[in-house]
Amino acid sequence: MEKSRVAIVGLGTVGSGVARLLLDHGDRTARHAGRTLWLEKAVVRDVSKPRGCDLPAGVVTDKLEEVLNDPEIKVVAQLVGGLEPARTIMLRLLEAGKDIVTANKALLAEHGPELFDRARELGRSIAFDAAVAGGVPIITNVSQCLSANQVESLQGILNGTCNYIVSQMDECGWSYQHALSEAQRLGFAEADPTFDVDGTDAAQKLAILAHLAFGARVRWADIPRTGIDTLDLADLNFAKELGYRIKLIAHARLDKAGLELSVAPTLIRSGHPLAEVRANYNAISVIGDAVGDLFFHGQGAGQMPTASAVVADMIDMAVGRTPITFRTLELWSDREAKVDLRPDEDLPGRYYMRFRVNDEPGVMAQITSILGKASLSISSIIQHEPPKPSSGQDRDATVQLVIMTHEASEGVASRAVEQIEALPVTIGNVVRMRVVES
Amino acid sequence: MEKSRVAIVGLGTVGSGVARLLLDHGDRTARHAGRTLWLEKAVVRDVSKPRGCDLPAGVVTDKLEEVLNDPEIKVVAQLVGGLEPARTIMLRLLEAGKDIVTANKALLAEHGPELFDRARELGRSIAFDAAVAGGVPIITNVSQCLSANQVESLQGILNGTCNYIVSQMDECGWSYQHALSEAQRLGFAEADPTFDVDGTDAAQKLAILAHLAFGARVRWADIPRTGIDTLDLADLNFAKELGYRIKLIAHARLDKAGLELSVAPTLIRSGHPLAEVRANYNAISVIGDAVGDLFFHGQGAGQMPTASAVVADMIDMAVGRTPITFRTLELWSDREAKVDLRPDEDLPGRYYMRFRVNDEPGVMAQITSILGKASLSISSIIQHEPPKPSSGQDRDATVQLVIMTHEASEGVASRAVEQIEALPVTIGNVVRMRVVES
Repeated sequence: MEKSRVAIVGLGTVGSGVARLLLDHGDRTARHAGRTLWLEKAVVRDVSKPRGCDLPAGVVTDKLEEVLNDPEIKVVAQLVGGLEPARTIMLRLLEAGKDIVTANKALLAEHGPELFDRARELGRSIAFDAAVAGGVPIITNVSQCLSANQVESLQGILNGTCNYIVSQMDECGWSYQHALSEAQRLGFAEADPTFDVDGTDAAQKLAILAHLAFGARVRWADIPRTGIDTLDLADLNFAKELGYRIKLIAHARLDKAGLELSVAPTLIRSGHPLAEVRANYNAISVIGDAVGDLFFHGQGAGQMPTASAVVADMIDMAVGRTPITFRTLELWSDREAKVDLRPDEDLPGRYYMRFRVNDEPGVMAQITSILGKASLSISSIIQHEPPKPSSGQDRDATVQLVIMTHEASEGVASRAVEQIEALPVTIGNVVRMRVVES
Repeated sequence: MEKSRVAIVGLGTVGSGVARLLLDHGDRTARHAGRTLWLEKAVVRDVSKPRGCDLPAGVVTDKLEEVLNDPEIKVVAQLVGGLEPARTIMLRLLEAGKDIVTANKALLAEHGPELFDRARELGRSIAFDAAVAGGVPIITNVSQCLSANQVESLQGILNGTCNYIVSQMDECGWSYQHALSEAQRLGFAEADPTFDVDGTDAAQKLAILAHLAFGARVRWADIPRTGIDTLDLADLNFAKELGYRIKLIAHARLDKAGLELSVAPTLIRSGHPLAEVRANYNAISVIGDAVGDLFFHGQGAGQMPTASAVVADMIDMAVGRTPITFRTLELWSDREAKVDLRPDEDLPGRYYMRFRVNDEPGVMAQITSILGKASLSISSIIQHEPPKPSSGQDRDATVQLVIMTHEASEGVASRAVEQIEALPVTIGNVVRMRVVES
């Protein structure tokens, strides 16, 4: 049987998983690629470090040149994280004539145009199904299986760390801080979780999906994003009372007014498949104008789910499918429309709002009259009786008020909230989130 | 831009949808294929019949020869249903040098070996993503995206007609007959629904998936199957009481003892994604040893969802991806293992059983002693008080008894049921279904 010689650069968690699949399960690549993917080299920084997998003698090296200078190695899984030296390694591999598979979404989000242009100039290809949603093959599905469709909308839970934290807050009544510590203890969150919890990671993935789904050149930093780091348990509980769950949703919608992209905690009606996504899972709901609604759910990270996506890409690359896709799609190329994001002001949406106000007569009238003048129609209201004060304590002189609106525009809703925040009876900032029905 | 000339044979519901996508949305095929898919011919039986789409002059013809003899037409969507003349048309198209896209799963299930062998001999390819689960791209996902995995199990709701009927029975309390009539009125069921409701359609789709997921040559007729046509509302209600829903599940599982395949109404625990699949949707849950569990959900039939899958296949064919996949997978070839299905006798499973018995002392002891001797451990029991008789009527002298077992083997369960059916206190046959937890 024919042999395709391949290499791995970076033998961390995912790299070790890829090595295991290639070394222990050659029968699979043989069956699906009609050839063996032969692991020739694995490049690491420190050859003395113990690895999670046994590699045959001579495979591990700390010299990238051994890959660059071996013309028999055609496909390389580049699994070094971060921006540098990952970017330089990618460029050197391309210049040495290698096709590359990568799981590094931050690198693509930041340097995609440069890397893809360079690959095209050199007649090389880059595959990256593992870069978004890990084991869920959303890249192939959007770029290949949905090619007869205009994607109309795409909503995803793309960050497993955030979904774990929010699900635990929701199901166990934990605070954000406690859920984050547990996520860190279990290895679902990094020691510095900033880029996960502030929505950066989801925005980078959404930018990649927007290229594929809408043929749109989008910079991830232009996507408005709110993380889960300011999420309050009170809102999860009120949402539940209203028949909703809160999830960190990466949201894309195309209509005549343009493309809307955002990442934010969002209320999803219970029973909607996205509302039921638990633990550290990822899920994506896509609506195409021909296919209707499609839903994908699976492991968005982790050693073997990510390795599964990397090796599938390596097979696609070795047999020649990826180069075809790469040539036809021309991602991050000048051919792609430079789509301007739709201005926030006009975005339609329903809103959840929570206010803390003084518990005195006339407050409800002041608030609802602001909403009424803005033509913001109320769909439901919750105000609970204040808890009975413990003996010796004063009664709390403030109450929480939750209002769900009917559809309005972002501009109208944000101006109304500003006015309500300016009322003397309002304490602190108003919490506001979008609501998704279907 | 390059043009790939294509043709459609059969301009029914799906064919008209395919024509619409090709004619009205050439920009999509251009973007995803780097070329225009140009609809040159649409072959119909009766050119005078009105169509659901406007076709340019000269496209519609009743002569297959106009496609066969045009060497410029390379890709043909063969959308004639049934076995003949569909089989003959497929063979003539292959012999004329065409690559074929089809949605005809009955044809593949029955004549797959012949058609695929002939295609290979002639250096041609057949694509069939639309043949299983309509708009849900499960064929591409299993054969391409999961190629680094050994699929361990696959459970699907593959027949939208059955899912509609069962969902309506479950949610509205309708009888099977009433739900079937409604399905027919809405166009979700054919005038003769036999092959849908008796499990044939789901078994044919499962046979195709088993080729892709397990590399196993399976004849659909060898797959044990039970339809929904004997499903009783009482069982849906008892299942609900126990925290389950009943769905028609196409089930595949591989373990050391072999491959298990079946189609049958099955109890699925509420909250499991398959339990929540509503209306005429399809869904598939796949477990791969690397990727873990993946779940796909969408429209399994209908004009545009199916057309979406057909056109995606036509694009894959025109750009050259499908020919690669077709060559490497060697489906229905001698290279595929002739896998023997695991004998029913040894299949492990939990069971739901419903008995009608005489309402007299000692009955429960007789039944539970049979189960006990068979080492069939009981996980829960329901026996409701008999309804109060209307005035003038005798009290019903029988009661229904529902038992859920812990895990046992199919052989043990079926022998115990036979013994219980033979008891003088038992009336009629015992209803027995498998139970899925996760």
